[in-house]
Amino acid sequence: MKRELKQVWRWKRGSHPVRLDDELAAEEPLEIRVDTRPVSVTMRTPGHDEELAAGFLLSEGLIRDRENILQIKRYPQNREDNVLNVFLAPDVKLDFAQLTRHVFASSSCGLCGKATIAAVHQQFRPLRARLRIAPETVLALPDRMRLSQTTFERTGGLHAAAIFDSKGTLVVSREDVGRHNAVDKVIGYGLLQNRLPFAKHILVVSGRASFEILQKALAARISVVCAVSAPSSLAVEFARDSGQTLVGFLRGETFNVYSWPQRIWKSGDHKLGKT
Amino acid sequence: MKRELKQVWRWKRGSHPVRLDDELAAEEPLEIRVDTRPVSVTMRTPGHDEELAAGFLLSEGLIRDRENILQIKRYPQNREDNVLNVFLAPDVKLDFAQLTRHVFASSSCGLCGKATIAAVHQQFRPLRARLRIAPETVLALPDRMRLSQTTFERTGGLHAAAIFDSKGTLVVSREDVGRHNAVDKVIGYGLLQNRLPFAKHILVVSGRASFEILQKALAARISVVCAVSAPSSLAVEFARDSGQTLVGFLRGETFNVYSWPQRIWKSGDHKLGKT
Repeated sequence: MKRELKQVWRWKRGSHPVRLDDELAAEEPLEIRVDTRPVSVTMRTPGHDEELAAGFLLSEGLIRDRENILQIKRYPQNREDNVLNVFLAPDVKLDFAQLTRHVFASSSCGLCGKATIAAVHQQFRPLRARLRIAPETVLALPDRMRLSQTTFERTGGLHAAAIFDSKGTLVVSREDVGRHNAVDKVIGYGLLQNRLPFAKHILVVSGRASFEILQKALAARISVVCAVSAPSSLAVEFARDSGQTLVGFLRGETFNVYSWPQRIWKSGDHKLGKT
Repeated sequence: MKRELKQVWRWKRGSHPVRLDDELAAEEPLEIRVDTRPVSVTMRTPGHDEELAAGFLLSEGLIRDRENILQIKRYPQNREDNVLNVFLAPDVKLDFAQLTRHVFASSSCGLCGKATIAAVHQQFRPLRARLRIAPETVLALPDRMRLSQTTFERTGGLHAAAIFDSKGTLVVSREDVGRHNAVDKVIGYGLLQNRLPFAKHILVVSGRASFEILQKALAARISVVCAVSAPSSLAVEFARDSGQTLVGFLRGETFNVYSWPQRIWKSGDHKLGKT
């Protein structure tokens, strides 16, 4: 994880400013190219760039599995730079138009949340995974994610995303200045390590749950998403329509379940109804 | 500000889940068109859409001032929908290529933070505004911004951005599920109300300060940016090169100044050196 030291002036009410060193999260552009054609420039925290590129291409629907990627090469090869070339297998049919419009689509009935969800489901079908997770397991996740973090604690400047199995064992955790990048990195890890689909896994994010976080989780077939902060209305609608269990405000001793509560299950407990 | 009620299951350690209503921040797509040509789809919290469109076009460098905009019309006109048409004055020369590459640029020396900053400065020149702000004024800003917020407090799901004058008087404050959208909205307010440039003003954001936040502030000629949370390394470099005072970790009784500290000034105090 790249960090940078900067000199700052720290002010405290009623006293003179003090000069000291502060550690900051690194942010730099990364250009992702597919077969040498530029498809995206994103501002990211350097590190795990191959995972970021792989996760981005998967969640944009450009690739489907590990075999689609022949090689990921830094350009130029002989020095560290911010351009990555992803070379795809010859049988991968590329739809570059896909990329420019992202997953959003203006349908005949107008542009709205419902049309956007329908457009995503044309690419990634809803989930039906059966999974039982104990509420105590859910409650333990944020602390376990924080234990795996380093820079975040020091600088407060990074978003985190982590994948756990259904027993709450950490699979991978990544940090980034961009919340979507952190999610792309853990999904990209899964793809490159041949661990996808994450059908029996949980995605935890340090901040809010937006539509795009849920959409990326669906691309990796993740059926349980937990956010430390609030979900948006569209994230909840998307999760309901996609068969995803969405947990929000997961902090301290409590959490909220917004969709598909059947997967959170207390041994010997009454059965919860469908959303 | 649009809100939505959703039924949730609230779990607390050791007890059964309780069903209750939870208020969520609304998130919906907005398509921005320029002279009927689609240029962007963004996920935003509905409300102040005209400001969002105007601020977006300004910070992308497509327009420069209020006179560039003839009219902003919702499409179709007769019902509320998520498509806005911005009609520009005939003398505005449009560079649509600008939009697809955003402000990022891969230069001959490679893609890096320095090249990215240089590319932005070709569009928006650095600032030299003389401005004196008392540290007590800076310390008071987050509470004043929170007082102007509504949904954020209720749902915890929204980012906020606000503009203050140099005495700490609130000019405008906006909330959105997207941090960049909240900044685009306050800048768009300034543009539509003919209040730009915000040369003697302060931008406050509820979260972190990234490169893009500083770049948008520069487009509106804002020379002081305060973030409640951490800045990224590139945000600090950008602020230093752009003549912007960047304040981070503004909370409680303290804050850090990362660049151009001369503008934070305690009456009768010693003079601080240049960065």
